[in-house]
Amino acid sequence: MSASVLEHGWLSHLLGDQEGQGAFTDETELRTMLDFERALAETEAELGIIPQKAATAIVSAIETFEPDWAALGEGARQDGVVVPALVKQLRKAVGEAHGRHVHKGATSQDVIDTSLALRLKTLIKPFDVRVGRVIEALNKLEAEAGGKTIWAQTRMQRALEISAADKIAGWRQPLANLAGGLPAIGEAIAVVQLGGPVGNGSGFEGHARELRAMMAERLGLGDPGYCWHADRARITTFANWLCQLSGALGKMGQDIALLAQTENATIKLEGGGGSSAMPHKNNPVSAEILVTLARFNAAQLGGLSQALVHENERSGAAWTLEWMILPQMVVAALAGLRHAGQVLDQSRFV
Amino acid sequence: MSASVLEHGWLSHLLGDQEGQGAFTDETELRTMLDFERALAETEAELGIIPQKAATAIVSAIETFEPDWAALGEGARQDGVVVPALVKQLRKAVGEAHGRHVHKGATSQDVIDTSLALRLKTLIKPFDVRVGRVIEALNKLEAEAGGKTIWAQTRMQRALEISAADKIAGWRQPLANLAGGLPAIGEAIAVVQLGGPVGNGSGFEGHARELRAMMAERLGLGDPGYCWHADRARITTFANWLCQLSGALGKMGQDIALLAQTENATIKLEGGGGSSAMPHKNNPVSAEILVTLARFNAAQLGGLSQALVHENERSGAAWTLEWMILPQMVVAALAGLRHAGQVLDQSRFV
Amino acid sequence: MSASVLEHGWLSHLLGDQEGQGAFTDETELRTMLDFERALAETEAELGIIPQKAATAIVSAIETFEPDWAALGEGARQDGVVVPALVKQLRKAVGEAHGRHVHKGATSQDVIDTSLALRLKTLIKPFDVRVGRVIEALNKLEAEAGGKTIWAQTRMQRALEISAADKIAGWRQPLANLAGGLPAIGEAIAVVQLGGPVGNGSGFEGHARELRAMMAERLGLGDPGYCWHADRARITTFANWLCQLSGALGKMGQDIALLAQTENATIKLEGGGGSSAMPHKNNPVSAEILVTLARFNAAQLGGLSQALVHENERSGAAWTLEWMILPQMVVAALAGLRHAGQVLDQSRFV
Amino acid sequence: MSASVLEHGWLSHLLGDQEGQGAFTDETELRTMLDFERALAETEAELGIIPQKAATAIVSAIETFEPDWAALGEGARQDGVVVPALVKQLRKAVGEAHGRHVHKGATSQDVIDTSLALRLKTLIKPFDVRVGRVIEALNKLEAEAGGKTIWAQTRMQRALEISAADKIAGWRQPLANLAGGLPAIGEAIAVVQLGGPVGNGSGFEGHARELRAMMAERLGLGDPGYCWHADRARITTFANWLCQLSGALGKMGQDIALLAQTENATIKLEGGGGSSAMPHKNNPVSAEILVTLARFNAAQLGGLSQALVHENERSGAAWTLEWMILPQMVVAALAGLRHAGQVLDQSRFV
Repeated sequence: MSASVLEHGWLSHLLGDQEGQGAFTDETELRTMLDFERALAETEAELGIIPQKAATAIVSAIETFEPDWAALGEGARQDGVVVPALVKQLRKAVGEAHGRHVHKGATSQDVIDTSLALRLKTLIKPFDVRVGRVIEALNKLEAEAGGKTIWAQTRMQRALEISAADKIAGWRQPLANLAGGLPAIGEAIAVVQLGGPVGNGSGFEGHARELRAMMAERLGLGDPGYCWHADRARITTFANWLCQLSGALGKMGQDIALLAQTENATIKLEGGGGSSAMPHKNNPVSAEILVTLARFNAAQLGGLSQALVHENERSGAAWTLEWMILPQMVVAALAGLRHAGQVLDQSRFV
Repeated sequence: MSASVLEHGWLSHLLGDQEGQGAFTDETELRTMLDFERALAETEAELGIIPQKAATAIVSAIETFEPDWAALGEGARQDGVVVPALVKQLRKAVGEAHGRHVHKGATSQDVIDTSLALRLKTLIKPFDVRVGRVIEALNKLEAEAGGKTIWAQTRMQRALEISAADKIAGWRQPLANLAGGLPAIGEAIAVVQLGGPVGNGSGFEGHARELRAMMAERLGLGDPGYCWHADRARITTFANWLCQLSGALGKMGQDIALLAQTENATIKLEGGGGSSAMPHKNNPVSAEILVTLARFNAAQLGGLSQALVHENERSGAAWTLEWMILPQMVVAALAGLRHAGQVLDQSRFV
Repeated sequence: MSASVLEHGWLSHLLGDQEGQGAFTDETELRTMLDFERALAETEAELGIIPQKAATAIVSAIETFEPDWAALGEGARQDGVVVPALVKQLRKAVGEAHGRHVHKGATSQDVIDTSLALRLKTLIKPFDVRVGRVIEALNKLEAEAGGKTIWAQTRMQRALEISAADKIAGWRQPLANLAGGLPAIGEAIAVVQLGGPVGNGSGFEGHARELRAMMAERLGLGDPGYCWHADRARITTFANWLCQLSGALGKMGQDIALLAQTENATIKLEGGGGSSAMPHKNNPVSAEILVTLARFNAAQLGGLSQALVHENERSGAAWTLEWMILPQMVVAALAGLRHAGQVLDQSRFV
Repeated sequence: MSASVLEHGWLSHLLGDQEGQGAFTDETELRTMLDFERALAETEAELGIIPQKAATAIVSAIETFEPDWAALGEGARQDGVVVPALVKQLRKAVGEAHGRHVHKGATSQDVIDTSLALRLKTLIKPFDVRVGRVIEALNKLEAEAGGKTIWAQTRMQRALEISAADKIAGWRQPLANLAGGLPAIGEAIAVVQLGGPVGNGSGFEGHARELRAMMAERLGLGDPGYCWHADRARITTFANWLCQLSGALGKMGQDIALLAQTENATIKLEGGGGSSAMPHKNNPVSAEILVTLARFNAAQLGGLSQALVHENERSGAAWTLEWMILPQMVVAALAGLRHAGQVLDQSRFV
């Protein structure tokens, strides 16, 4: 229950997406941060940066680690980032003998950016599958009705006749292009972050490059070849893809809402939304929501791109802006794919 | 636990605001929607639009109404708005004899916009109080240190000497201006919405104007004199105020972060944020967050203003965009006031 | 001929506005900057800050001043602001005896912000007149066709019947509200800027307050009571008004484009745009442009609001952002008023 | 002389870029539109869609074509797009015998989008060269001063020591990445547009696919394999690259402005900007402008992405929004590269 539509009692059903939100819960974030700390300890032990015994103790402590959530909240409030509080708790869990080897040479941003990369990576497949489903729904619609003749509309006026298949192809091609670009997006974003407090890996005792490469391998991520603390372009590359996806769906939604207008009636919607006052209404709710989500993500991309001005070695101001915006863009894009599926299921060319 | 920082286990401590979020929970929204339906029934009975017995039954049912939350969620998903499902539940609760008199002549947007107005109205006082507190904190800082001589900085270079009081006045004046404008903002936004399904009040049996005025009176709101379903300027008037507030605080935060730089050291922060890797750090966390929130609200204002293109009598696409953005702007502005208080408490001119 | 549509050989006819652009030409800016310098000299002489003879020489030099444009360009490129080069030229024109009294105690931002205020002030009347004309066109349309019955559309579906007058009222009321707010906007923006290099007027020999008040009087501007170098809220107050205006017009444009769709045909456009390929087309060009301009100004408001984070006493980065955005918003708003007039002239309810 | 900084007497020296603006002048646009019409005629003749004689006449007429600029302006104002007026003039120039074969089967958007592709293509090389020059300047700076020890700054506080080379690498890597991505951007954007009035090439007498492929070849563009009238993702792919470039430069500018602060003095600027009031000032003008341009392009990307909701077969509203925004983004990105070169020339690590 929240000011965010994503947790609202009823709006979450309209505007949320469980799979997308799942990637950004505190539980998931905590788990992937612990994955980072474990991989760091194991790899640092391999490279002799910390003792093997310390790594064993750290891995063991992580396995049974139960955070003090209240202290994490207080830590985030105080430090602007949860990691100092988390590391303190982890060190205590590991015990006095080895605790100081936890998080050796790393910095908060290494943990959180890598956690983000791990979480975004898990979304590539769902995006692929769900874009694929929308394409299939379009194929099905084409098979059913592609041969029908409809009016093309240009500049909001009837232009010439086209086939429904032409219209459907115009919705499908951008989605196919975006699906085609997804592997590259996945590679761009699913990379380890490891630079230490000032980005040059100086706390890794001369092993910064190997450590980064080995960490990447262990975590199933790519090695970007450098520390990207202050280079946020991969974040906006992903966000631009999300925005283009929402835009492609929003264009389709706008078209369907226009084609389903009472006076146009090229498309009939079966089972649209009802009205509190007009029982005869059959509102193109999902089509409208697609437009909403496209406009939302366009505006968010503009906001997120402000975070490219990431001053100095690490910026609290710019980084925090990403936390506020990126998860919402992911969820909006995924919610759009759900609505696209719904509205295509409801749509009949008549 | 959510993709929204407002419900996140630890980020909510940094970026949330309980008072602001309280105005947007589903519980609060439901309660104020019921306030609308009760006032509507009572006033319609006074005007003879519905029987007095029906109004009595409706008021009585609302007093003990317990919603079926799952059905509200399903209704919102289906209809794009919760009101049809809510009205259905309410009618059932009122019973067969009078149920059909619930929501007589009104439309979903009447309920939700009026609910929003009621909720935003409750925030005017907290905004006033909390801006006032920041001004007091600035007064205190001025009393302590206003006479100190510091360097003015223009275009990121030392310019000439000024007093700390000059600097503080530069932070205070915009806040004083915004506080001065708050009553007018409150009047603009705290108005009833009542137009019926197509805005002309045709379902109110010739009493649309009186009904609107009496409803406003009963609910403690203003009467805007017309139905504003499709005129969303008052929403962006309020949002622009929020953005200017976040901007004024962001400017102060940016200044403090600059003055607290190690090399500048005009301001010393007591109890800033810690680092996971560098124990000597004393990070200007709240100052940075003020910059974040200013950039966030600036971007959101741009997004919200897209909803001014509210097509036809009522637009699902544009309206839903407001739901996604406005609550976040309110919370960001209030969170900023909290951070402003914190950072001023921590700041000492040295 | 330019990357800007405002100077483009043909796009300027579609998207420009001569009156709006006239307020932002270099000629107009130069003239109002000279107005500032003259008023400064005269007032400083009255207050004894500079000798009366110097003021006389300055006023006289300004009367015949011809700038070296190339040097102004080079100066802007070098200094980020034209004023140092301009003052240098002016001092030379005044001559050695009195030249050093030019610009006494002032700073670049005093000149340029005051120049902006003078220029924006001249636009208040045209905005008022032109909004009034659109309202009159709506009144005329109502007189002609207000009694016709048309379909209201909600959520992109036929809802219930309303009168054309209802529709027209929905377009007019937001414009009437905006016109009503214009005097307050004018007062907010038409104020003198005078603070000197670091805002505290330290170079005005103890007369900063009187000087500011007298300058305001002399220039026909208001006295804001403080130096607003770093408080840019009045800029976004004005921009928000522009955005709301563009939004109100964009809403009307979107409605007209929808009502003029071939299948809907509630409105017939006489003399819309032609197509290069389809002679039968009668495109709702002005209606579409109104939507374009609304979306443009919404995005620009988001960008301009980033400039509220105006660090320290004066920020080159934030200030320059205003220069890039605000003039375009003014022109877009005025171009919208022109298109609104055109499309209403073309519109017939049928 | 204009409301646009790009044509302003002095601001153009600060914020314009001749090479970038050159790609968007009406002259350049006209020439590339004529290139399209010539290639269309030639290719249609090859495919037997129009007579060879007609093609010869068209090519000949284009060679000596002098437009009636006033009529083009009036046409754009009336039709929302210049092409109908241009085609009319061209047909007249070709003469009665063959005039009707001009523009055969094509539509306005084919002409203008292809013209845009031709013009953007010419910018890929300059972008590559100019990003390369900034990288070289960084290499030079590294060679001079890379070994110096400086303070890393995180969250606006001194963190640990790093080398100047570390800092420089943080500026260079994002630029190198962007340069590496430029060929793919070029391929994405430099594609022919050819769909005819409703996108399905129905006016090309069964030769739509061959015609598109041959046109692409003839014009030195790629064949996208479909008509992208309503799929604007390639526009935002390019714009996102521009925004990332401006962001990378803005980050560098922000860093330099911070490092050049009087109190920090890690970098000394030689020949920064002067002040009208403080002769001792040495302002980091180009560094500040880089921040301005980054924030400008971030906001513009948000605005441009709204145009992804391109309704139906062709949208006047969405398309026109691109015309207003994209050229400015290109120029801002190029102006940034110029300022980056300047500020690096001025910068010395001390």
